[in-house]
Amino acid sequence: MPEASPFLLACNRQAAPVTPVWFMRQAGRSLPEFRALRERYSFFELVASAELTAEVTLQPVRRLGVDAAILFSDIVTPLASIGIEVEIKSGTGPVFAEPFAGEADLSRLRPLEPDLDLAPVLDAVRILVQELEVPLIGFAGAPFTIASYFVEGGPSRDYARTKALMLGEPELWGRLLDRLADITIASLRAQVAAGAAAVQVFDSWAGTLHPDHYAAHVLPASKRVFDELADLGVPRIHFGVTTGELLGHLAAAGADVVGVDWRVPLDRAWQRIGDRAVQGNLDPAILGAPWAVVAAEADAVLGAAGGRPGHVFNLGHGVLPGTDPDVLARLVDHVHERTAAR
Amino acid sequence: MPEASPFLLACNRQAAPVTPVWFMRQAGRSLPEFRALRERYSFFELVASAELTAEVTLQPVRRLGVDAAILFSDIVTPLASIGIEVEIKSGTGPVFAEPFAGEADLSRLRPLEPDLDLAPVLDAVRILVQELEVPLIGFAGAPFTIASYFVEGGPSRDYARTKALMLGEPELWGRLLDRLADITIASLRAQVAAGAAAVQVFDSWAGTLHPDHYAAHVLPASKRVFDELADLGVPRIHFGVTTGELLGHLAAAGADVVGVDWRVPLDRAWQRIGDRAVQGNLDPAILGAPWAVVAAEADAVLGAAGGRPGHVFNLGHGVLPGTDPDVLARLVDHVHERTAAR
Repeated sequence: MPEASPFLLACNRQAAPVTPVWFMRQAGRSLPEFRALRERYSFFELVASAELTAEVTLQPVRRLGVDAAILFSDIVTPLASIGIEVEIKSGTGPVFAEPFAGEADLSRLRPLEPDLDLAPVLDAVRILVQELEVPLIGFAGAPFTIASYFVEGGPSRDYARTKALMLGEPELWGRLLDRLADITIASLRAQVAAGAAAVQVFDSWAGTLHPDHYAAHVLPASKRVFDELADLGVPRIHFGVTTGELLGHLAAAGADVVGVDWRVPLDRAWQRIGDRAVQGNLDPAILGAPWAVVAAEADAVLGAAGGRPGHVFNLGHGVLPGTDPDVLARLVDHVHERTAAR
Repeated sequence: MPEASPFLLACNRQAAPVTPVWFMRQAGRSLPEFRALRERYSFFELVASAELTAEVTLQPVRRLGVDAAILFSDIVTPLASIGIEVEIKSGTGPVFAEPFAGEADLSRLRPLEPDLDLAPVLDAVRILVQELEVPLIGFAGAPFTIASYFVEGGPSRDYARTKALMLGEPELWGRLLDRLADITIASLRAQVAAGAAAVQVFDSWAGTLHPDHYAAHVLPASKRVFDELADLGVPRIHFGVTTGELLGHLAAAGADVVGVDWRVPLDRAWQRIGDRAVQGNLDPAILGAPWAVVAAEADAVLGAAGGRPGHVFNLGHGVLPGTDPDVLARLVDHVHERTAAR
């Protein structure tokens, strides 16, 4: 069943019966059933339980009718699992107790042993592929974005420490990214072995970089991630925001599908991406406007995609916390109806 | 003297003896002499005093050797001057006591009477043009970015309220932007009448918009700002971040000089901007790297500018608070030395 899914067909640039839809951050944040769980459990209590991880991953599939599920996780989950102290602060993001401060901290990034370190995550994947009628997308961070949190100690506006390390100590930076790439590769390979039908690599903040810096200091590690997943034969999605100037590089890293935020019209983005599928690109803030506006803007995205095979409808970034889940559900139906008629 | 200044020559795309340099946020933040003042005075106490405003504006000119001064202010200063309650919170930005909530709030935006409302600001300009040996740049916000603060109540990650208003109530949105445009025009005309030799319009956050939304809902008001300053005969600079896809629109709004953040290589940006001068575009975070990196990256910006007349060297956004002023001073010298040899 999942093999013929609209989501997998679109990822492979094959004609699909409808344009598939899923939403970044569909699991969590805006769903009342998630908030109810989150009041009882911390983030890491949720991901330490296979049953709770599976439940949170399933919630949006039940409620919204999306064409894919994405494993509920965070990009720092593998680091936490190898003993690096990190907290997910609601409304903020990951905060490290001891940020990366130099070469001595490399050894804290020991190799990931997924069967041991990510046991509940992989159990959740196994539960989910039994329960789901849509494909499950595996979840991991790209080396740059994980490094940025680890170096800054948490979210950053300007990535000043990260960039000073990257440009000032490029050799050490390269070793840091290599270790993080190894962890991402191990995590995603294990998720696919457990049943994930696609993977998404979140390089959410790579768009803070000049394209030349991305090419010199980030692309090699990200390319290795995609290369070392190639033999798995599942679609590999690559995503970040404010990546207008990086889209060609994101494609060159080896992704099958490149995510596009809302700042670049999808047709223009697709030209830069070339011969790959695209995912996006409705501005998540628009979901707070009246429904007629949401529908018109969704139509504009579909119009820019032009009905070509290879478009996965999504937001340009994650669902905002204040989003009405009924609008998300209505949007899924709308995209399906609009594109089924073709 | 200022008429033959490298800064004004570059703004007018004429050959200059050196590539001129100034820094957004050069006044404030990173300078110890500013911090000392800021410990004694609130932001609005500083801008309510012509002498203190002039002093803060002069500090970086003395210390850094930049080719232009920019009036120390904030884009919400005119709103505060007509009685709208707003506070500048250190490390956060403007926070409004009563954000814009609907049509009834339009009347709070009464027309600006610069001679009365901005008396200390204009007195500061008069003091400065006596004291300065470099041109003074007048300072104002563009309608969109001011509106975003007023509608959100403060800084925002996603501009959800702003976009919901813009797309959901476009007629009301248009009236809001028109009132803000009137205020910006009045403020900048008065600053030029008092002696400012150029103006910069900060649309810092316009880059959060899809280009079609910018064109439909923002460009008309910004274009009116630039049109109604045209007869003054001073260079008009237009600036925002993450504007890669908007650069053509920013130029079309009527600017003589378009600012470019660091995400777009300057040569690529200049192609999109066309027949205007450009300003930028070194990543401010790079100033935290070792000097050899800073120098190499500055050279890369100069290389992308290609020695063509019409480049004002600047950062791609404001000076970060942690920046070492000595690095800023050294960077000014470096750009001058590199470009004087041509």
